[in-house]
Amino acid sequence: MDLLSVVKGIERTDSQVGQFARARVDQLIKPVGSMGLLEDYFVQLCSIQKTLHPKVSKRAIVVLSADHGVIEEGVAVCDASVTLKQTLNFVRGYTGVCALSKQAGAKVLPVDIGVCVDVPSESVYQRKIRYGTANMTKGPAMTREEAIRSLEVGIEMALLAVKEGYTILGTGEMGIGNTTASSAMLSVFGAVDPAEVTGKGANLPDDLVLRKIDVVKKAIAINQPDPSDPIDVLAKVGGLEIGGMAGVMLGAAFSKTPVIVDGFISTVSAILAIRLCPEVKAYLIPSHQSQEKGARFASQMAGLNPPLDLGMRLGEGTGAALMFNILEAAIAMSEEMITFEEAAIDVV
Amino acid sequence: MDLLSVVKGIERTDSQVGQFARARVDQLIKPVGSMGLLEDYFVQLCSIQKTLHPKVSKRAIVVLSADHGVIEEGVAVCDASVTLKQTLNFVRGYTGVCALSKQAGAKVLPVDIGVCVDVPSESVYQRKIRYGTANMTKGPAMTREEAIRSLEVGIEMALLAVKEGYTILGTGEMGIGNTTASSAMLSVFGAVDPAEVTGKGANLPDDLVLRKIDVVKKAIAINQPDPSDPIDVLAKVGGLEIGGMAGVMLGAAFSKTPVIVDGFISTVSAILAIRLCPEVKAYLIPSHQSQEKGARFASQMAGLNPPLDLGMRLGEGTGAALMFNILEAAIAMSEEMITFEEAAIDVV
Repeated sequence: MDLLSVVKGIERTDSQVGQFARARVDQLIKPVGSMGLLEDYFVQLCSIQKTLHPKVSKRAIVVLSADHGVIEEGVAVCDASVTLKQTLNFVRGYTGVCALSKQAGAKVLPVDIGVCVDVPSESVYQRKIRYGTANMTKGPAMTREEAIRSLEVGIEMALLAVKEGYTILGTGEMGIGNTTASSAMLSVFGAVDPAEVTGKGANLPDDLVLRKIDVVKKAIAINQPDPSDPIDVLAKVGGLEIGGMAGVMLGAAFSKTPVIVDGFISTVSAILAIRLCPEVKAYLIPSHQSQEKGARFASQMAGLNPPLDLGMRLGEGTGAALMFNILEAAIAMSEEMITFEEAAIDVV
Repeated sequence: MDLLSVVKGIERTDSQVGQFARARVDQLIKPVGSMGLLEDYFVQLCSIQKTLHPKVSKRAIVVLSADHGVIEEGVAVCDASVTLKQTLNFVRGYTGVCALSKQAGAKVLPVDIGVCVDVPSESVYQRKIRYGTANMTKGPAMTREEAIRSLEVGIEMALLAVKEGYTILGTGEMGIGNTTASSAMLSVFGAVDPAEVTGKGANLPDDLVLRKIDVVKKAIAINQPDPSDPIDVLAKVGGLEIGGMAGVMLGAAFSKTPVIVDGFISTVSAILAIRLCPEVKAYLIPSHQSQEKGARFASQMAGLNPPLDLGMRLGEGTGAALMFNILEAAIAMSEEMITFEEAAIDVV
C-alpha cells in the first residue's frame, strides 16, 4: 500500500473499549492504580484490538538491515560487511535479538531494505531499495522517492505479518553507521546541537565520537533538511532501515495492531512516524531506555516512557523482545484476577 | 535450620566462574557491554550457581502473610480481614502475584507466618508464629524470639523450595499495615525522618498519611529500636512477614540459589538480611522500583538497582514475578548467541 493511503487510513484507537478496560482494571482486587503501567498497557491493548481480551501470543519482530554511506567518514568501529554478516546471523538465530526473541517465543523477520551488497539468503525478505545510502556529508543520503519507498517497505512488512496472524509486532534494525543517521535526524527534529544527541554507538572511542559529531553537523549543514518535512529529513540525513521501522509502525497502526518501539534508532523512527501521522502514537508501546546518548531526549520527543532500564544499547530489537512477556503479564492481570465484588472485600 | 548456622554458612559467590561468565559475554557478537544488565545478571547467576549454564526454569515466589497490630491506629484503608482473604486468594490464583506468576510459569507458595486468625486451607504453609503483631505504638511489635523465629520460617521455606527443585526464588508478602512497619524499620536503619519514607501504601488518603507518619514516629519513640541490632529493629517496629522474607533471602543464599527482591517491603527485608549477613547481597536480584514513598531510598540503602520502572506499588511479589523471564533472557543471550570468532567478525 502507498504511504498516503496508510497515513490517511490510520484510525484512532477505541476509547470506549478503553474505558471499559479501565473500569475492569479498577475493580480488580488490588488498590486502584497499584499495578501501574501494566494497567495502562492493558487498556492500550484493549483500545487497539477493540476487545477486553487482547492477544499478544503470536509475536514477531521485523528487523530491517541497511548500510550507510556515511561510514566512509570513520564514524563506526566496524565496516559495512558486519551488516551483511549480522543479517545472515538473524536467519541462523545467533544474534542478540534472536536469543531474546527465542526466550519470548517471538519470530524474527529479517528484511534487507538496503544492505550494500546482495544478501544471499532465501530466509531474508528481499526488499532492497538501494545498495546502502550515499555519504550524507556530500549530499542527500537518498532521494525523496527512496525515502518514501523505505516507509512503504516497512508498511508492507507490517501488513504481511498481520496477515500471517501476528497480533503484536516489534521493530528492530541492523546497520553499521545508523546511530550517526539517527543522531542527525534527531538533531534536526528536535532543533538541538548534534553534540547533545550523538553518542558512542557500538563503542566508538571518545575521540571518534567528536569526529562523529562533526560529521553530523556537516551532513546537516550541507543538506539543510527541512524540520517541518519529515520525509525530507529522512531522505537527506536518515537511513533506509530508519524509514522502514517507521513504516512498520504506520502499517501496524493501520492494521490495528500494537507495535513495540525498541531503543535509540527505533525511537527516532517513532518520532518520524508520529510526525507523519500523530494518530500512530496510540499504537506504539515503548520498551527500554537505551544507554545511547540522545536516547532519553528521543523518548521525550516521542512522548514515550520506556519501562525497562537495563542499560542496553545494542539495538536489533533486543529491548522490544523483552516487552512481549510484560505485555502478556498485563493481560494475565485481567484474565486471572477477580474483582473486589467477587472477592467480597470492602475498601473504606 | 537456626538463624546463626545459616548466617555463618552463607558463602561468597564464585568469582572465578563469574570471570569465565564475563569473558564469555564479552566475546558474544555485540559491542562489549551493550546488553547492559542482562550481562550482569548472567554473570551473577553463573557465580551463584557455579556454572556457565545457570537455570531459572523452575521458579517459585514465597508469599508470606501476616497482620499488624498497628492498624488499630488507623493507618490502613482495609481491615485485617483482607490479609486472610487475600491469603486464601493466593491459593485460588486470583491475586496480582498469581496472575503474573502464571504468565511466568512460576509457582506461588503461600505461607501463614502471622495472620491474625486461623487460615483454613491445607494449601497454605501453616507457620504462624503469633496472631499478628502487637500495636507497636504501645510497645514492641513482637518479642526478640519471635523475630528470630520469623527469619527461621523464611529460611525453612527457602530450603524446602530448593529441596523441591526450585532453582530461583522470589519474595512476596501480604499484610494490611505492613508499609507502616516497613517505613518504621527503614527510618531506623537509615536514620531518616519517618516523613521521608512513609507513603500512601494501599491508597491511604493524604490526611491519613500524616497520621501514619505520626504513628511511625510514636512507635520509634516508644520502642527505641537499636539501629545497630537488626533483630531488635525487626522485633520492635517490624513485622513477621518482613522477617520472613529476609529469612527467604538468607535461606536462598545459604542454598546457593538466586532470590528476587520485590518492591518496598521486600527491599526493607533485603536491608535487614544484608545487615544480618553482608554476603547475602550477592544472591539478591532486584526487580522493580516501587512507587511507594521510601522505596527509592530503600533500594539505595540496599545497594540494589531495580531495572523495571512500571509505577507499581502492589507488593505480593508482583515485581519479582516479572523478573523471571528477564533473567531467562539473560541466560538465552549466552546460550543462543555466538562469539565474534565463530562469526568471523572483526572489530577495529
